[in-house]
Parts: sequence; C-alpha cells; structure tokens
Amino acid sequence: MKLILLSGGSGKRLWPLSNYSRSKQFLKVLQRADGQLESMVQRVWSQLERANLAAHASIATGKDQADLIHSQLGSHVPVIVEPERRDTFAAIALSASWLYSVQGADLAETVVILPVDPFVEDPFFERLKLLEDVLDESGAEIALMGVTPTHPAEKYGYMVPAGPAGGKTGYFTVNRFVEKPSAEAAAELIRQQALWNCGVFAFRLGFMLRLLEERGLPVRFDELVRQYHRLPKVSFDYEVAEKTRHIAALRYDGYWKDLGTWNTLTEEIRTPVIGKGMVGEDCLNVHVVNELHIPVVVLGLSNVVVSASYDGILVTDKAASPRLKDLIDRVDDRPMTEECRWGSYRTLDFQVYPGGREVLTKRVVIHRGQHFGYHWHANRTEVWTILSGEGEMVMDGRMIRVQAGETYRIPPHTRHAIRALSELEMVEVQIGSELTEEDVHRVAADWEEIVGLTIADKGGGY
Amino acid sequence: MKLILLSGGSGKRLWPLSNYSRSKQFLKVLQRADGQLESMVQRVWSQLERANLAAHASIATGKDQADLIHSQLGSHVPVIVEPERRDTFAAIALSASWLYSVQGADLAETVVILPVDPFVEDPFFERLKLLEDVLDESGAEIALMGVTPTHPAEKYGYMVPAGPAGGKTGYFTVNRFVEKPSAEAAAELIRQQALWNCGVFAFRLGFMLRLLEERGLPVRFDELVRQYHRLPKVSFDYEVAEKTRHIAALRYDGYWKDLGTWNTLTEEIRTPVIGKGMVGEDCLNVHVVNELHIPVVVLGLSNVVVSASYDGILVTDKAASPRLKDLIDRVDDRPMTEECRWGSYRTLDFQVYPGGREVLTKRVVIHRGQHFGYHWHANRTEVWTILSGEGEMVMDGRMIRVQAGETYRIPPHTRHAIRALSELEMVEVQIGSELTEEDVHRVAADWEEIVGLTIADKGGGY
Repeated sequence: MKLILLSGGSGKRLWPLSNYSRSKQFLKVLQRADGQLESMVQRVWSQLERANLAAHASIATGKDQADLIHSQLGSHVPVIVEPERRDTFAAIALSASWLYSVQGADLAETVVILPVDPFVEDPFFERLKLLEDVLDESGAEIALMGVTPTHPAEKYGYMVPAGPAGGKTGYFTVNRFVEKPSAEAAAELIRQQALWNCGVFAFRLGFMLRLLEERGLPVRFDELVRQYHRLPKVSFDYEVAEKTRHIAALRYDGYWKDLGTWNTLTEEIRTPVIGKGMVGEDCLNVHVVNELHIPVVVLGLSNVVVSASYDGILVTDKAASPRLKDLIDRVDDRPMTEECRWGSYRTLDFQVYPGGREVLTKRVVIHRGQHFGYHWHANRTEVWTILSGEGEMVMDGRMIRVQAGETYRIPPHTRHAIRALSELEMVEVQIGSELTEEDVHRVAADWEEIVGLTIADKGGGY
Repeated sequence: MKLILLSGGSGKRLWPLSNYSRSKQFLKVLQRADGQLESMVQRVWSQLERANLAAHASIATGKDQADLIHSQLGSHVPVIVEPERRDTFAAIALSASWLYSVQGADLAETVVILPVDPFVEDPFFERLKLLEDVLDESGAEIALMGVTPTHPAEKYGYMVPAGPAGGKTGYFTVNRFVEKPSAEAAAELIRQQALWNCGVFAFRLGFMLRLLEERGLPVRFDELVRQYHRLPKVSFDYEVAEKTRHIAALRYDGYWKDLGTWNTLTEEIRTPVIGKGMVGEDCLNVHVVNELHIPVVVLGLSNVVVSASYDGILVTDKAASPRLKDLIDRVDDRPMTEECRWGSYRTLDFQVYPGGREVLTKRVVIHRGQHFGYHWHANRTEVWTILSGEGEMVMDGRMIRVQAGETYRIPPHTRHAIRALSELEMVEVQIGSELTEEDVHRVAADWEEIVGLTIADKGGGY
C-alpha cells in the first residue's frame, strides 16, 4: 500500500495567517498533548507514524511548499513536486507515474489518496488500511472512505449507497454522488444512509496508469513532468470518480472535520490566546491567534476570532468567517511573512519615497547550516545588521566571518551569499527600486560551489 | 481676559493610540470640513482663533507634551511647563503665577481655565467670554460654565442652582455640587435644573494668588517652579471650588461632549475606516482606526471599534470600551510610537536573545532643520541606515554629510548627533543591553554648540 498526501494551494480562507506561500495546513495552531503547537500537516504525519503508514507515504505538492514540508516534517519525507498547479487529477496522475517509474511500484499496488490535512482521530488511519481489502472484496475500481454525517451540512459532497453493506469489511457500492445539497436534501440523503465524501480513496496503480495511456499521456515520471501542461486542469472527482461505474465505499463512524475556516479551526484550538494578547473576562468564545510582537486586547465581545500576522489583522464573527474569502480578494496581499527551507523572514516595514525609492525592512532568520545562494541585485543596496548568531558571508569573492552586532553594506552589482554557522538573525534593509524577485540574479546555489568561487577570486584578487 | 488650557496626562482609555507620551488630545482622528484629520487640541485651538481668543490663551502641561503641542499648534503657542504632574490645583496655581510674574498680568485680570480638549461647537467660546461679566455681576469668586444635560449621565459632576437665573448674563448662584450620581439621582438633579460641570471656570488673578499666599507659597513663577513639589497633589475642585462659598455659573445649552473613551470618540468620527482597512458589508456601526502599515479586515460584527498602533491592537465592543482602562493596566506598555519636537519614531521590532542581548529596530523621522543632541551610549551599538532625505552628522567630533542610501555604525562610547537638512528618515537598529533612556549620556543639546565642539576636535585631530 502506498499513500499519497495531496498538499493543496494557498488558502485565503484563513487570512492573515495563510497567504500564497503559507497555506493553512502549515499553520502551527493546534495544541499537542504536551502543550506544544503543531500544524495540521505535522499532526497528520505523526498520526501516520503511529499507524505505521508514514514509511509508505509521499506528499504531492507545488514547488512553493516543498521547502516548508521538509522544514516541518524533516528532509527525509518524499515530496513529489508538481511542475505547476493543475488540480487533483493531474497531481494524482503525476504521483502514480512517480510510484511506478521512480519508486518501481507494482501495477497491482494499492494507492490511497488523501488530503494532507484531514482533522481526524487515530482510528481513521486503521480504517484507511481496510480500503485495500475493499478493492479486493468488491472488485471496484475505486474505494472511497465515507464519513457518517453528524448534521445535514450543505457544504459537503454526499455518496449514496446502492444497497446494504456487505463483505468482511462491511463495504457498500456507491449508487450516486450529490454535491452540496440544500439542508432539506441533505437530511433526506442522511435518511438514505448517505455518507460525506472526505476526499480519501484508493485504487490500484494500474488503474490510474491506464487512464494516462487512454489519454495518450506518458506513464514515465520525467516524461510526464515535461508534458504536464498537457494534462487537463480538472479535479479527480470530475475527471474520474463521476465517470467510473463501479465504486465501493467504507463507512467511518468517527470524528472528521474540515478545518478550512476560522470558525471550524478555532473549535479545535483549546487555548483562547495564541501569541501575545489578553481577552477580557466579559468575553465568551473568543480566540486570538497573534503572530505580531504587539499585544491584542479584546473587550466585551463573544464568538469572535482576532488573527494578526505581518500580513494584516482580521477581526471576524465566527459564523461570518466563511465569507472571508470574498472580502480578502480585495485586500493588498504582498505577503509579509514567509517560511522557507533556509529559515524565515518577516517584513517589518515598507515605504515608498518621492522619486520612487523603495525601502523594505525585514527581519531574517537563517537556520544553522543553511545559506542564501550567491546572487546580486542591479537596483538595490542591502544593509545587513547581524542580530544574533554567527555565519560566513561571501562578498564579491571574499569570505568574511560575521557575528552578532556587525553591519554589512552590499551595494548594487555586488555578489553576496551568507551561511549560518549557528541560528542567525539579521535585520535587512533594502533600498532601491524593483525590490522583487525579478532583481535577484543568481550566480551559484550550492555552498561548496560558492566557496570554490571564493578561492578562485582570492587567487586572482590578492 | 486670559485663558489657560490644561493639557492633562496620559490616557490609557484610548489605548493603543494613546500612551504615556501621546495623550488622547493629540490623536488625529477628527475630520475637518476639508476632509483632513486633526487632533482635539488642534480643533480647540482653531475654535479659539475663530473666537479671537487664541492670542489670550496659554497651555499648561508637563514637559513630555510641550514638544507635541508646539509640533501640532506651532511654536508660537505659549506653554507653561509644569516641573512635574501634581493635579489641577498645582497646574492652575503655577499658571496664575506665570500670568502674574512672567506676563505681568493685573491682579484684576479674569482668568478662564478650560481643558485642552472640550468637544464643543463654536458658540461655546462666545458664551465663555461672558464669564468675566458673570464675575462682575455676581461678585462671586468663581464663575463656572454649566452644560444643560441631555440625559441623566452617571459619569459627570452636577452643579445645583440656588435659585433662578438673574442679571444681564443670566447667571445663577451654585447651591451645591454632586459628583457621579446614580441614574435616578441624576434624573432628580436634572428636574432641579442642575447642570453638568464641564471643567470650565473663571476667577480673578488676585483670587488665585491670595490662595498661594495663604498657603505660604511664592507667587513668583521661577520661585514656585522651585517649590512645586510642596504644592498639594489635589484637584482644583477639591482644594478650592468645594470650599468657596460664593460660586456663580452660566448655562450653556449647546453641544458638549467628553471624548474620553472609544465609545464617545467614535461617535464623532465620520469615516468608518481611518488608515488601511476594510469593513464588510455585513458590519454595522464599526470603526477602524489603524496606524499600522498592514490592513485590518472586519467581518460580521456590529458596534465594534478596532484600533491598531505600533503599541498594540484593541478590539472592543463600543459599550464595553470604558472598561478598557482596568484591563490595559495589565498590558506591557513599552510605547512603540512617539511623536516629539524633532520628529517621531516607530518601534518596528524588539527582540531579546539568549545571554540578554537586546535588539530594538526603529524607523525614525527627523523634521527638516531639527536635530538630535550630541550624546553617547555605554552599552549599545547603533546602526543608522538613511532611507530618505539629507543631513549632517557628527561622530566623535567629525562632521559628515549624510544622505539616503548610506549606513553609519555607531559603536558604544562614540559621541554622535544628527541634523536633518531636509525631512530625514532612517532605520535605527540598536544592539546591546539597557536600551533605555538611562543609557543616553548627553554632551550638548544646541546645534551651534555641537558644531563648535566639532571644529575644536578637528583642530586637534587632523
């Protein structure tokens, strides 16, 4: 059995904590038993480890999330990088080709697809292991996990059984799917024993590869990466599940939840204040999630979420929070906080002066042993003031040992790189114009290679 | 007639916009007819100008507010600086001694005392001019302004008339005062024609000087400044008004309001969003006052104020906002934004590292022609990166011309000063320990003197 976790795109529904580089599954807002905070991805991965499934699992995602996954779960976790975002059918097809041609998996291998962030209890994963048996017993092409509904929700998809459960696993055959029914229709579906579709399903590897072949697409991973743009941009549900005649499903009776909005997410956050803040005694059911260094104070309110990050501040009634997405599309969304493989940064300030000079002030953290690639800028001066830690810096071929309290000025066209010997923090002030990725000209990425260039330069320069 | 405006101490009731250096009367949140924002102090001063009273007015306040008053009203406004805060009796006594011994005012001069921030319409100031006539007609020692109550408020003081109004001015004699009555008692007081005490009153200069003499205190300003610590720390109401037998009062029928809480203040703010932010269409009676560079988004709430500054973020139900003061006493209140005579600064970031190293990052604005005094620090390095403008900087006796894009590093024990030749902005990173005023060692304040020191140093150094 192979597991593929799909790590989806950006979520604006949890703005300002989520932004294009930081999706909701990476937010550290869930409290572990020991009181530490963890992200949804970390929670699921530790559940997979406890169920002895982690060794069989890989994560399919975009380039932008690969670093973050390795930073949160460890660099040993296999990540299948999608060349671009093309919805779930393409991501699953790519994962199948990867299992087949890179991992050498058998065509009869069972592949289980699941979102990277289902909020479930541990028994869910024991149940998930049975999907292989359901495929065996039912002879179905796809075996789904169906969640017993707790209320006639309008926002989920429902699967309706064709008849009573059977076999050793207690599977049933799916008669039809209903997407987002009205509350009355949902109540009627529940009377017909319909279950929620939680996006977890299994198939044989060969089934998916056949779908590729039928579409004239390659089954080899490297070739499919090259032709990835040819894949239709549709969901697996639409492209495959709805057109597949024989689909079986397995009932899951436990806890399952979509933590996609502030409303549902805060139901699972046990502590009222994460970060700096205070909630008045006259408040009821108020949650503060604050990443800023200044305090949040809430007074006289009930059923409210206040969330603050360097991207912005949200104050929302919990029930209204699902409407956030519509509003946030109109907000300027230059992301102010980014986490990446080498560390993280926060934008402290951004100013534009008459004449167009821009100034961007960031606090940057580089993890021990990590480094920036060797690069230069045409239109900006950077000033680095080291706040803590030690590192080695390369400037135009010269290697300098740097430490807390020192300041370095990097004029335009000066090649520079830095590597943290211990966790290193600095304030970076960028002054110039076009302060974007466009004006980052890369010379070398690998530290050994950068050091090599340094020696060569030294030889010539001194 | 002389007017003394009392500019009181810090207000935590409008946190996070007000802090110890920035009291509520200086917040620019009121909208002028032309759409520009102004502070309460600015509004009152322009009303005094329209009433031809500004030329007769002075402002009594603490050292900490003097710069701000000059910056908001102009450097020509006379400010009487209290050596320390000792409540209103001391402030009024000091002002009287200043009028007498510095301005040379006559003992028969009428002195009108008023808060620096009454929120009233222009006719109030025409009415105020009549207080002199009330003193004449009534022969009273103190003439008060009484506001016709609009509702049985519990939070105000009431003055009860002894009989019907008389004289040309329509004054009446005050029988007694009642502080913060219950709602029922207030309703009964209103039936007895009682008026709100709005803190505006007049007396003859000689009356106040006699009170000083009776207490064995000097009437000369410079001497009273020296003995200021001997003055009792009580209110004028308690020390004088309540003990004075003959008090007259004049009724004012117009609009008057105490803008001391978010609740009452936002009633006078016409625009729902000041600063960067957005209020959802599902919101009702919501005000955002945002000084941060990141947006505030409010969704699905009613009767709420969200206020954000570099000091913190407040989210409060409007009716609950008067309770803010109790809660905020428990919040860490290192002020993050300060306005002063030479400009302003904002704390962008503050970090403490293992071993106790502190790092404070600020963006500083120095107004054209203004400067920092010559000083040095024992325990910090400062790094100044000039973002915009031009200036001249002195470092250990050397004068340097500085401009946007440059960086200067100031090690411990290095004397330094800077003067803005045009509006100058910089990022200042302070690295060290004890990053407070305690470690600011002043060498010289006056720029001419600093330049003098420079030349002397040059003579010796080069």
